[in-house]
Amino acid sequence: MPDASALTRAESLITSIPDYPKPGIVFRDITPLLTDAAALRTVVEALIEPFAGRFDAVAGVEARGFLLAGAAAIAADVGLMPIRKAGKLPRPAASMSYDLEYGSAQIEMHDDNAAGARVLLLDDVLATGGTLRAGRDLLQAVGSEVVGIATLLEIDGLGGREVLGDDVHAVFRV
Amino acid sequence: MPDASALTRAESLITSIPDYPKPGIVFRDITPLLTDAAALRTVVEALIEPFAGRFDAVAGVEARGFLLAGAAAIAADVGLMPIRKAGKLPRPAASMSYDLEYGSAQIEMHDDNAAGARVLLLDDVLATGGTLRAGRDLLQAVGSEVVGIATLLEIDGLGGREVLGDDVHAVFRV
Repeated sequence: MPDASALTRAESLITSIPDYPKPGIVFRDITPLLTDAAALRTVVEALIEPFAGRFDAVAGVEARGFLLAGAAAIAADVGLMPIRKAGKLPRPAASMSYDLEYGSAQIEMHDDNAAGARVLLLDDVLATGGTLRAGRDLLQAVGSEVVGIATLLEIDGLGGREVLGDDVHAVFRV
Repeated sequence: MPDASALTRAESLITSIPDYPKPGIVFRDITPLLTDAAALRTVVEALIEPFAGRFDAVAGVEARGFLLAGAAAIAADVGLMPIRKAGKLPRPAASMSYDLEYGSAQIEMHDDNAAGARVLLLDDVLATGGTLRAGRDLLQAVGSEVVGIATLLEIDGLGGREVLGDDVHAVFRV
């Protein structure tokens, strides 16, 4: 487990941008953290540590989820399962729709090495939990066991944890 | 450097899909390689090895470039610089347009830790080179030095190497 001071330093690099993408919303920008090698390693280790030895692959949802999933795959020495927005894959094995604030979206994936795999699902920010819930359903549809969901930053008060249940690990909460 | 047999095995996992996204085009799908832990580690090491010790960060272009860039950042213990499609960032510091087969596209990035950084630019597939050239121009616009471009798979005959010059490393060529 990374030490507390390294985590505190990493958290301090997350930048709050008020009124983006619309008035009243505070956008949490993790770019300054990602570009710092020590902070990146610290949070990736903190993200996967509670699930150590219990997963064969990590999955991430396009696009920002790919950054942490790629990093975590190497840190944990496991496979990497990309979950994509609809229409990007030549041979989607499964797809899943989910509701957005207005309208809906769809994610898709291949099923290479998916059957029976123990998968840790990752994303950078947990807000309402809709995308992660759809990701978990999609992984189960291709035959994987989702051993947990790990997110860098959980935003309280938006209901994400209620939607996903208790197998959610957040490195930071705001 | 990963051994030849590990690389041969990894390459064999890349799947060719004829006539996608349109007749006459052979799509190269790297998903089966990514989901295999050993193959993923092998290609990530092969991707960065020629530039070892010469870069402080890796950059990748949304979305598939994020997978390998995230992985390479941890493998090389460096920072991670995401380059995004236009309209996704709250505070883009620089943007760059480039031509597609029909029309044009635009990429953007923040400039956190960018000034003076020695950056390795990564992508999964090198075809015409347009996106990678724009990525290199964008990194230079935020003050980074691009020490090289590394790609998992170079598709010969599409002019990518001519567009990018000789600082391009490809793990596999077809």
